[in-house]
Amino acid sequence: MIALPAPFTALTHSHDLHLLQPGQDDVAAWSIDQRKRWHGQPLAVLLPGDTAALAAAVALCAQHGLRMVVQGGNTGLVGGGVPDGSGQEVVISLRRMNRIRAVDPLNLCLIAEAGCTLAQVQEAAQAHGLLFPLSLASEGSCTIGGNLASNAGGTQVLRYGNARDLCLGLEAVSASGQVLHGLKTLRKDNSGYDLRQLLLGSEGTLAIISAASLKLFARPQRLHTALALCSDLDQACDLLMAARSRLGPLLTAFEVMNATARALVRRHFPAIRQPLDGPWAVLLEWEQHGMDDATGQAQNEALWQALLAGGQAQDVALAQSQAQAQQMWALRESISAAQGREGLNVKHDIALPISAIPAFCQGTDAALLARWPGVRGVNFGHLGDGNLHYNVQAPEGEDPAAFLATHEAAINRVVFDAVQAAGGTFSAEHGIGWLKKDELAQRGQPLQLDWMRRIKAALDPHNLLGRGRLLDV
Amino acid sequence: MIALPAPFTALTHSHDLHLLQPGQDDVAAWSIDQRKRWHGQPLAVLLPGDTAALAAAVALCAQHGLRMVVQGGNTGLVGGGVPDGSGQEVVISLRRMNRIRAVDPLNLCLIAEAGCTLAQVQEAAQAHGLLFPLSLASEGSCTIGGNLASNAGGTQVLRYGNARDLCLGLEAVSASGQVLHGLKTLRKDNSGYDLRQLLLGSEGTLAIISAASLKLFARPQRLHTALALCSDLDQACDLLMAARSRLGPLLTAFEVMNATARALVRRHFPAIRQPLDGPWAVLLEWEQHGMDDATGQAQNEALWQALLAGGQAQDVALAQSQAQAQQMWALRESISAAQGREGLNVKHDIALPISAIPAFCQGTDAALLARWPGVRGVNFGHLGDGNLHYNVQAPEGEDPAAFLATHEAAINRVVFDAVQAAGGTFSAEHGIGWLKKDELAQRGQPLQLDWMRRIKAALDPHNLLGRGRLLDV
Repeated sequence: MIALPAPFTALTHSHDLHLLQPGQDDVAAWSIDQRKRWHGQPLAVLLPGDTAALAAAVALCAQHGLRMVVQGGNTGLVGGGVPDGSGQEVVISLRRMNRIRAVDPLNLCLIAEAGCTLAQVQEAAQAHGLLFPLSLASEGSCTIGGNLASNAGGTQVLRYGNARDLCLGLEAVSASGQVLHGLKTLRKDNSGYDLRQLLLGSEGTLAIISAASLKLFARPQRLHTALALCSDLDQACDLLMAARSRLGPLLTAFEVMNATARALVRRHFPAIRQPLDGPWAVLLEWEQHGMDDATGQAQNEALWQALLAGGQAQDVALAQSQAQAQQMWALRESISAAQGREGLNVKHDIALPISAIPAFCQGTDAALLARWPGVRGVNFGHLGDGNLHYNVQAPEGEDPAAFLATHEAAINRVVFDAVQAAGGTFSAEHGIGWLKKDELAQRGQPLQLDWMRRIKAALDPHNLLGRGRLLDV
Repeated sequence: MIALPAPFTALTHSHDLHLLQPGQDDVAAWSIDQRKRWHGQPLAVLLPGDTAALAAAVALCAQHGLRMVVQGGNTGLVGGGVPDGSGQEVVISLRRMNRIRAVDPLNLCLIAEAGCTLAQVQEAAQAHGLLFPLSLASEGSCTIGGNLASNAGGTQVLRYGNARDLCLGLEAVSASGQVLHGLKTLRKDNSGYDLRQLLLGSEGTLAIISAASLKLFARPQRLHTALALCSDLDQACDLLMAARSRLGPLLTAFEVMNATARALVRRHFPAIRQPLDGPWAVLLEWEQHGMDDATGQAQNEALWQALLAGGQAQDVALAQSQAQAQQMWALRESISAAQGREGLNVKHDIALPISAIPAFCQGTDAALLARWPGVRGVNFGHLGDGNLHYNVQAPEGEDPAAFLATHEAAINRVVFDAVQAAGGTFSAEHGIGWLKKDELAQRGQPLQLDWMRRIKAALDPHNLLGRGRLLDV
């Protein structure tokens, strides 16, 4: 085991830098991810308070050949922010870099440091009557730097895009400790390769995002929420087509939930009202803009009359109040927790072309049931984005943990083979990290992987940032 | 002067590849850009008909160490697609690769080969009742491959983003002739570095885009167009804020034109109706979605009543017919032609934070007038995107060509220095190419340029693609 070089202590005197060391300090919070799936052991934890301290810390790590792993809110689902067990990786936590540096309402943007929580960014926008639309279950603790480094998705992608689409510029620190000053706030800028887009989604393996300029939006006047019932996924797709055609950019959410998913919520959260019952439920929401409330209400009723008359849904419940809308969202958002109470399950974060989804589900459901009779498909997600959480729960009565341990790899193979055949991805919004790097190595194209390795070597030639995550280099 | 190696002729027999050679064939159309600003001389012109032929041609060029320059519709404004004068560059024209490979209305996407004209892509979308929103003056002849390689902007960026934002996936050929198969059609995909975004806007210097999957959108039910008058740019910015707040994503165009720009149109195109006169005109357009036409009409009138009552505009003319809307757009789109008839001028394609624009214009107008008395600022553009065509015309009566030849460099320096000080860019939507590579070399950050060179060397190690364009390597 190597020891931390002495100059790091000196750096805490000259810069706004905190240093934690195992043995002297409790580093558990930085060694294990929030869901306790990965357990590591850092050489040290560095907590810079500003970009200068971050750059100096990285430069010193680089001089000493120390590997670094960047951590934000530690809420990632693929282990990318946790140190390995070698005791040789320095964790660089950006949580202390959490200032909103500027808000510019006329230019519809703000500049946030990487350690700001997503909720903090949302609140800074709201304080100016504006919207930062990225929205995730972990928004109270995840950081915007992590959201950008992993290109987070969430529930508003249909209308506002992924984290990648919400970023106008980046400040970042290179693997050798130099600062890239790219906090532009421009809607158009064609002056060279888009280094910003290269860093977004690179999971901390190319450089460390220290701050970002982010797009803001006008807040909707109000939301119209409805829970509709469809007889199958084909009808849900018809409903999506018809709703998009009528609502255009006003359509903000189109979530689907199969009967199994809703039955688990009924079992474990009986207080959540489920106004309709049937094979597939759709949570549809649209934003009102450019019209007064009475007009919005009338247009919403006309919309659903037309959709029902057109055979695009079997039935619908319209939220008549914010409380009713919240109940509809509670149903959607309780599925994961209900699954957790039911026991461990095989989770998949896949995306497909929307047009391939009905056949994919029919074929894959059948293939899984044929091989594992009684297995329960908990299928829900963002149909409007083609992103399904296609989860597989053990048959009723079987021990979930034993089932998972025995069958997870084989189930993954069935699902991912079908996803790949349909032109989809095995990682829609959670990234690669440790969890899926073998999957990427196996399913990625050789030329794609070759280019990724070349780019990694070009920007981090000593392979010090997030070594072994994402890419097997 | 080198000669074309013999194997190229053999390749035209084994592959769908046309070969043109100076001396034997007329290659003028591939040697000079459409605006006749750059004149070059190719070693040969290769016209592949499919990706296999393209890959084979590139591989052969690479084997022989031949430099390649990719050309689409040859409408670029910075010279990136024209061969140099050495007679040693092979032009690879993608015009024959012009098939729409697929349209998927449910997944809202289509796949087009790089040589499709932009108009052809728009028409393919329209044939399915959908919209491909990229829109440029040269759409009849520019190609989608060129649009993507240069990250084209245009008049719909406020609502739909740049070309970069409209692309879901790319097929591309590497500098050594390998094919990257990346024609995904997914809204969410976090499986590795985003190579697509790196190639978009790289102007043919990293790889050759051979096909793309593109986002489609629901067509608006109708457009509401208005021409408003503002007393100054501050009021125009107020109007933008108020319109965005009320219309949200329905706002599709917010164009400004100063009095000098409109006076040139009046002089050279007197038939174009100009219903209002005053310091600044704003062309505002919004899309109707989710409401019937009578409601849309009523909401438009209510919008403008509120904007006038709120002091956000002095006066407004609402288009009552499509013909009237077209007249308003004709005014906006005739400014460049009117400038051309008035004589040569110094053109700038700049973008700034919107909030910086009033002070930038006031300060730079004054600086230019102080140094060049009588000089005329023709200022117009996409205020909603912060993108101005801030052009400088010789004083009345002076010879425009002589003025340009004498003062262009000094005027550029005044303008670009002010742009840079305000956090803007000297190239908003036209790219770098030959024209602005010195500007980029001077104004780019050293670390940014270093990373760009490293990435260029990683993906094109022998520097065969577009050598000397964009980057001075």
